[in-house]
Amino acid sequence: MAYIDLQNELPGIRGLMAYRPETAKPLNELAEILLRDDKNSLSRGEREMIGAYVSYLNDCWFCQSVHGAMAGHYLQCDIQDVEAIKKDFTSSELSDKMKALLSIAANVQKSGKHVTPEQIEHAKNVGATDKEIHDAVLIAAAFCMFNRYVDGLGTWAPNDIQFYVNRAPTRAAEGYIDFDLYK
Amino acid sequence: MAYIDLQNELPGIRGLMAYRPETAKPLNELAEILLRDDKNSLSRGEREMIGAYVSYLNDCWFCQSVHGAMAGHYLQCDIQDVEAIKKDFTSSELSDKMKALLSIAANVQKSGKHVTPEQIEHAKNVGATDKEIHDAVLIAAAFCMFNRYVDGLGTWAPNDIQFYVNRAPTRAAEGYIDFDLYK
Repeated sequence: MAYIDLQNELPGIRGLMAYRPETAKPLNELAEILLRDDKNSLSRGEREMIGAYVSYLNDCWFCQSVHGAMAGHYLQCDIQDVEAIKKDFTSSELSDKMKALLSIAANVQKSGKHVTPEQIEHAKNVGATDKEIHDAVLIAAAFCMFNRYVDGLGTWAPNDIQFYVNRAPTRAAEGYIDFDLYK
Repeated sequence: MAYIDLQNELPGIRGLMAYRPETAKPLNELAEILLRDDKNSLSRGEREMIGAYVSYLNDCWFCQSVHGAMAGHYLQCDIQDVEAIKKDFTSSELSDKMKALLSIAANVQKSGKHVTPEQIEHAKNVGATDKEIHDAVLIAAAFCMFNRYVDGLGTWAPNDIQFYVNRAPTRAAEGYIDFDLYK
């Protein structure tokens, strides 16, 4: 049970968003633009992977499961493959550009000041554009917020990873903006 | 200079927001609702102080200066008093409730999992409502995002604290939603 009375039984960030729809609105809009907007040279799967990886580093079970399942859905790979990438992306089959962006995301997770000019330069050298670097940093930073929000208020989350895998296709189709919240 | 070409000379998060107005919109709306909306039992000054304190813990000069100056403006105290609170809020004249919320915010800054049931219980015992605890956690989490965004992309910031103090009354009057960005 969450640390405060959410007046609903929804898991993770969904319970918090139903409790406080005024803040849910910009949070959902941020997720929609960063993770799902098609005007982006990073694929949806790549962006979800950055979010899942940062959530894994922050040990946030709800977010790493939701967004790991979303990454697997978009990248058309098994959840086990996503788990393997979270544990060691350097030996995965991801592109050099994605590895460079995940390396930046890992330092953002520690703090903004951990990002180095050298790793930014390397990302550019392997093909990352300025906008891709911008979005990778902001996705990583945003998940440092989402993860703290979810765990800092002690929300509950289903233990079974299959719950998240089963929900991913619907979430991919419907997106992150939940209009039901704002009626 | 920032790590990417922002095509503007604006400092801190303002340069990033001008570069990517699509993500600036929900980020600004989140700040507006969390920090400035008047339908909140925490004063604007109290909410800005939580943001300034977390930015101080994250060593983000731009954010701690902007929001420290905003806190001083609303609380009608000198910037030196705000600095003293950031360094040691426990011996300040803030209310027991604010001290309890800042204590929660300090743990959110480390990670969501650092928040303890005991400190939530203590906050409730000294008068914090569920919504105040919710907002304190989300403000702290949001600044963990803003700080990483600002420093992770290597933005520049004016060194002189007076720059931020001088700007605070205008920002307080105009709010965080910059309609010029979305024209």
